[in-house]
Amino acid sequence: MSQALRVGVAGLGTVGAALISQVAHRREALTARCGRGIEVVAVSARSRGKDRGFDLKKMKWFDDPVALARDASIDVFVELMGGSGGVAKAAVEAALAAGKSVVTANKALLAKHGVKLAALAEKNNVALNYEAAVGAAIPIVKTLREGLAGNEIARIYGILNGTCNYILTRMEQEGLSFADCLKDAQRLGYAEADPTFDIEGHDTAQKLSILASLAFGTKVDESAIYVEGISSIAPADLAAADELGYRVKLLGVAVKTPQGIEQRVHPTMVRKDSAIAQVMGVTNAVTVDASGINPITLIGPGAGGAATASAVLSDIADVARGLRVMPFGRPTAKLASVRKAPMQRHEGGYYIRLQARDKPGTAATIAKRLAQQEISLESIVQRHRKGAPESEVKGGSVPVILITYATSEDAVRKALAAVGRDKVISGRPQVIRIEKN
Amino acid sequence: MSQALRVGVAGLGTVGAALISQVAHRREALTARCGRGIEVVAVSARSRGKDRGFDLKKMKWFDDPVALARDASIDVFVELMGGSGGVAKAAVEAALAAGKSVVTANKALLAKHGVKLAALAEKNNVALNYEAAVGAAIPIVKTLREGLAGNEIARIYGILNGTCNYILTRMEQEGLSFADCLKDAQRLGYAEADPTFDIEGHDTAQKLSILASLAFGTKVDESAIYVEGISSIAPADLAAADELGYRVKLLGVAVKTPQGIEQRVHPTMVRKDSAIAQVMGVTNAVTVDASGINPITLIGPGAGGAATASAVLSDIADVARGLRVMPFGRPTAKLASVRKAPMQRHEGGYYIRLQARDKPGTAATIAKRLAQQEISLESIVQRHRKGAPESEVKGGSVPVILITYATSEDAVRKALAAVGRDKVISGRPQVIRIEKN
Repeated sequence: MSQALRVGVAGLGTVGAALISQVAHRREALTARCGRGIEVVAVSARSRGKDRGFDLKKMKWFDDPVALARDASIDVFVELMGGSGGVAKAAVEAALAAGKSVVTANKALLAKHGVKLAALAEKNNVALNYEAAVGAAIPIVKTLREGLAGNEIARIYGILNGTCNYILTRMEQEGLSFADCLKDAQRLGYAEADPTFDIEGHDTAQKLSILASLAFGTKVDESAIYVEGISSIAPADLAAADELGYRVKLLGVAVKTPQGIEQRVHPTMVRKDSAIAQVMGVTNAVTVDASGINPITLIGPGAGGAATASAVLSDIADVARGLRVMPFGRPTAKLASVRKAPMQRHEGGYYIRLQARDKPGTAATIAKRLAQQEISLESIVQRHRKGAPESEVKGGSVPVILITYATSEDAVRKALAAVGRDKVISGRPQVIRIEKN
Repeated sequence: MSQALRVGVAGLGTVGAALISQVAHRREALTARCGRGIEVVAVSARSRGKDRGFDLKKMKWFDDPVALARDASIDVFVELMGGSGGVAKAAVEAALAAGKSVVTANKALLAKHGVKLAALAEKNNVALNYEAAVGAAIPIVKTLREGLAGNEIARIYGILNGTCNYILTRMEQEGLSFADCLKDAQRLGYAEADPTFDIEGHDTAQKLSILASLAFGTKVDESAIYVEGISSIAPADLAAADELGYRVKLLGVAVKTPQGIEQRVHPTMVRKDSAIAQVMGVTNAVTVDASGINPITLIGPGAGGAATASAVLSDIADVARGLRVMPFGRPTAKLASVRKAPMQRHEGGYYIRLQARDKPGTAATIAKRLAQQEISLESIVQRHRKGAPESEVKGGSVPVILITYATSEDAVRKALAAVGRDKVISGRPQVIRIEKN
């Protein structure tokens, strides 16, 4: 039996505390699996005195995580501090440069500096594992990096943010407004006091940038992602989606197109009978479309101390077993730059909800503008004032809901701009892309 | 760059042919991922002359797969012949003994001889990979063997046989009989001419035995599995399930209980809103319940040439990259013998459908027999002759559907035996276990 793997952990929040508890509880099984023990021998955190429910005395304490990262007493450095730069980056770099493998749950760091850090890991022949950074306990990083090595991936998409899915689920199931659901999510701890990062799609974008790199062998490039959040979604959209056989989910989507790789985060209509549409509440899910076979979907807890820690621990176990794969599945030198498919060239079906002025000729005007852009309609629902629910009739306007056949983003934008100039609608049109699945 | 990995393939059916095509198509990506090429250099099959759509001339031909397995011209042996013993076993043993890694899609071989073959692989420091043996393209073997190494698994269950799920889906959606759906499945090539192995649950049992070993660190033991197939399922059961908020799926379930490990294959009522209940048609799915976190579910194509070949190719890529994990995730010497939890001690809810004689006192008699076994009822639906659909009223009897609270298999069996002796029912009671999820 080899010597135990000595682990240093920087960051002792909920994930760090759960990790230390799991390492203790799973000692025997981990030793059997890895052929050696796993021991947390050193830690670093903001406050030494805080009661975390376990005894820090057996572990070496570091005020400075960077000092911990390069300390000779550890074999692997676990970064659980968070943040896209600063001390997290400095500590990870220090560990890699000192020839220590790194395990991190830090999506922001990887989205911003993933390629550079991967190159540093490669140069030093050490591992950089980050299963917990995307989808927490869902083993999607390993699945893309190793499990689907035999597959050519055409598209990957997922529900990567539990806060948004929780809000959309409650809006759909209870007919509540976005604002009310957000408040509830904040009260229950599912959303931050400043929820912008989650609800405007940036958290999803960071995770998507990592998945896209793993799926397509490209450099992580968050800036190549088109991002829209869910704050404009209204109960009327969810009700209309339901009637039409869809659900609305905030998806991160990366897809190969003839124009390059399209990466986008936006509210999306998905068919109710798809696996991803069934995913409710804070649960996450990722679907992988590989060439020539039916889709593969992974569903599971995408956040939480125990779920995140279990993924971190599996990454540590890989290090203990001596399994090492290039951080993005291939040498960084072979990662291609993203050829970004422009969003204007995006093609697909669209859901469009307009508040149309209730006067003769409105429908004809809208239809004409769509026809001018060669947009064909799969369905159009216009409720007349009498038939429309009271709530939908606003100062002489009625809702019109259009579903288009596949068309381009550019055509939709141009058509709606023209409709706007025609002054036949009030307010901003609501546009939700439909994802085939 | 290292030398290309030289692969020998025995068995050139749909999977073998798809594999050779995928190796050719993915040459560049595989080389980037693995740091070396992958080449199929030798093959063996029953008929050399058959047109398979690719040129055999560039590959060394072997009439005898065992000779191929030990030939010095190959580094890794891929077994795609099938069969739980015979030439498949001899060839795999020959390859391992000769120090060559083996990749196989052969669940029967692993269910029967997995532990012995794993020990042989270990002794020779080579890999024995078999991702394709369970759930084809779903990366469940890697997920259990590596991805969830940090998790303590409490239960694993899945839809592991596409034929059965196809039949149950059509029965449910179209109200057809089992016999009619089976015929259709045979016509469409989803079921064999002799469908017993699939529909009676044996295929599921073989796959479950492998998953249970990976999940719980026990020796593969197909004989420890309680097996029931789907041939007794009637449209009436699916209709009742639907009304009660359930779907019926053939599940393989392995669960840790205080009595040991319970392994069972049987038609199962699962709640409609669970991830597994959404899985329709030939698709497979596996759910893993790990301690302290919400379930993780993997869904995807569980059969087919391309899907199976892609998993085989990912396994080959692991060998090319030099990733090697013990075949069952830990040394065979550490695999525990299965302490089999007896089926009589199984605890859970039950769906029971009886054809009760339509006379006074019948309901009271049934209720008494259940009470004597301390079985509590969550619901009881008895349709009187007048109210029951014509089809359900058979010669003076009416259907009674009972849903029990958690009770034991033993209690249910004793209660139903007593009801049978009371002569208040006709025919055999239908019993379907309810799986909490």
